[in-house]
Amino acid sequence: IDSKLPDIGTTIFTVMSGLASKHNAVNLGQGFPDFPMSEELTGLVNTAMKDGFNQYAPAPGWMPLREAIAEKISFLYNTTVDPDTEITITPGGTYAIYTALTTVLQPGDEVIIFEPAYDSYIPNVTINGAIPVLIDLQFPDYRINWEEVKKKITPRTRMIMLNTPHNPTGSVLREDDIEALREIVQDTNILILSDEVYEHLIFDNIPHQSMLRYPDLLERSFVCFSFGKVYHCTGWKMGYCVAPSALTKEFRKVHQFNCFSAHTPSQVALAAFLQNRESYLSLAPEMQQKRDYFQDLMSKTRFTPLPSYGSYFQCYQYNRISDEGDKDFAIRITKEFGIATIPVSAFYRSGKDDKVIRFCFAKKESTLAQAAERLSKI
Amino acid sequence: IDSKLPDIGTTIFTVMSGLASKHNAVNLGQGFPDFPMSEELTGLVNTAMKDGFNQYAPAPGWMPLREAIAEKISFLYNTTVDPDTEITITPGGTYAIYTALTTVLQPGDEVIIFEPAYDSYIPNVTINGAIPVLIDLQFPDYRINWEEVKKKITPRTRMIMLNTPHNPTGSVLREDDIEALREIVQDTNILILSDEVYEHLIFDNIPHQSMLRYPDLLERSFVCFSFGKVYHCTGWKMGYCVAPSALTKEFRKVHQFNCFSAHTPSQVALAAFLQNRESYLSLAPEMQQKRDYFQDLMSKTRFTPLPSYGSYFQCYQYNRISDEGDKDFAIRITKEFGIATIPVSAFYRSGKDDKVIRFCFAKKESTLAQAAERLSKI
Ligand SMILES: CSCCC(=O)C(=O)O
Ligand SMILES: CSCCC(=O)C(=O)O
Repeated sequence: IDSKLPDIGTTIFTVMSGLASKHNAVNLGQGFPDFPMSEELTGLVNTAMKDGFNQYAPAPGWMPLREAIAEKISFLYNTTVDPDTEITITPGGTYAIYTALTTVLQPGDEVIIFEPAYDSYIPNVTINGAIPVLIDLQFPDYRINWEEVKKKITPRTRMIMLNTPHNPTGSVLREDDIEALREIVQDTNILILSDEVYEHLIFDNIPHQSMLRYPDLLERSFVCFSFGKVYHCTGWKMGYCVAPSALTKEFRKVHQFNCFSAHTPSQVALAAFLQNRESYLSLAPEMQQKRDYFQDLMSKTRFTPLPSYGSYFQCYQYNRISDEGDKDFAIRITKEFGIATIPVSAFYRSGKDDKVIRFCFAKKESTLAQAAERLSKI
Repeated sequence: IDSKLPDIGTTIFTVMSGLASKHNAVNLGQGFPDFPMSEELTGLVNTAMKDGFNQYAPAPGWMPLREAIAEKISFLYNTTVDPDTEITITPGGTYAIYTALTTVLQPGDEVIIFEPAYDSYIPNVTINGAIPVLIDLQFPDYRINWEEVKKKITPRTRMIMLNTPHNPTGSVLREDDIEALREIVQDTNILILSDEVYEHLIFDNIPHQSMLRYPDLLERSFVCFSFGKVYHCTGWKMGYCVAPSALTKEFRKVHQFNCFSAHTPSQVALAAFLQNRESYLSLAPEMQQKRDYFQDLMSKTRFTPLPSYGSYFQCYQYNRISDEGDKDFAIRITKEFGIATIPVSAFYRSGKDDKVIRFCFAKKESTLAQAAERLSKI
């Protein structure tokens, strides 16, 4: 058959995780934690199953969970969101992004994507017949060059995709980014997709520049979140999308005929879990400690850190060690030194090589220590 | 924004379930069981969560689950399917159908759909720019008129969508259907999508005419299954798609960027649960007993049964009672008699009215008895 995604091979995550297990490597590649998730939360799922919450949830989601999310949004961002018409529970953040793009993109629409970019963005755009307009983030701090964005805006620009905290680099949007964004989109029909799956994982008391904070931007945004990423259960595939009611109405049409609804017992459990604000307020300090612990250990190696302000990830330069391409380097150190990472060139369609590799530090201290020990030998 | 699905309102399932709770009605509408699912299976999920299976499964699915499915297929249909390249675990059967259609359909492709049809089929086709070619099943036994199919085949026919056991009517494919299908597709590029989400729920010892039985048909098929439907946990959103490796390869590209993977703890649990063949061999007799129990009670009412050979559903004619349209009738009896059903016209794009309503009999005996009691008053 004719492939609708001819350029797509196996993802880098699958490749590196495969290589990691083959070579018995410490795996700081694919973004998932290796420490246990909350026992309270798994217990709540078990209770929900026993209480018989095993049949379809309403397609938009279990209402008490949507209400709990609205409450959190009001508390954190001082914004009122209507759980009935503006929040939809989804099987994961990746699905929320796919569904949002499929909801609005028409053939020929242009979508601004900043690279390095999470690997689903470009295929999500092209499978809808739309055109990715790629803009490089500025090495080495990976911030947006808004002058370049302005130049790339055309009458066909339908959407700008944002991601804060940013995968793979750990950069975050700042208030001046919001102002620049506002200036560009106002008086246009340009929509925003904001991938905020690492929402609570932002460090050094930097405020998270969520679109939820800015009603004038939110009114043109799909904002996508992940419970899996923040609650350390990436395999649960639970997330949600916040969008104004006109967008949500169309989003739900696609969702209804894509997956229809998300896992019911998890929804019931998360509704209860979110009642306790500590469930999300405790996340940033925990993850920041891991970043600091790892960065401290890494200072004894020849790798040079780039700053990470949020997410699970930190990028390190290896140019004092080798001038190999980052893929060759990443593969070689997996095989020779037993340490798996992700080469950042995998997040550029052009394969652009910044000579940096990405480490996932959402790991037990013992894992991070063992990784640093191996890395110190390179 | 321009809607990509302008004709879509709220599904009939949501409408009738809403009306049911408002009027405190017995709900034989939306297709889900009201009896408890297997405690063994919920226990296995709890164990999987406690054992730490909470991170991403591989995108194609947890290998032991794919192996258990291959073993079941070999046992039931005497067909060898490669778990590595031909089975993909999905968040539900609806998702598997959506993803399969999105994998292959190009704008302008024609897709043959038999009506009454599950309500996701037509939007799944149109959102991909393809054209639904609608053929009515033959009232009152809802079998396929293959002569009419032949007439509707054109050089642009890309796919035929089948559904056995059939929702909403409970009809099933027979061996002569398979022969007619084979004659039509051989020497063409026509693909088959076979929705077999009610796989094990087929009665009176009729053999399930799965595409899995027929290697010459399977080689051009996506065959979609649901654990939720057969194991009484529709809210778990777990299913799978079997397709030859060339189709599976493309299916997985779309899946990887749609949801990426399905719920990990459920996959681990289902892999163990499937080891016991009784887990699926016991299903048909249990559900048949419910059909028979309900049909027996209904013989004391003025509703006339149409045959149900499988699924959760049986259709009944109400023309001895009323000549209202089926939607008006269904809404009125929900309000006046406290009994919710689904009007079959909701499954025809034209709104064709066969004067039948669909009952879901996947319910406790007490629920069925209470429903029949109310229905006897109409
Ligand atoms: C869905 S697999 C990729 C996980 C992830 O977010 C990452 O490693 O970047
Ligand atoms: C996904 S909601 C519809 C459930 C169902 O299969 C039906 O009632 O037909």
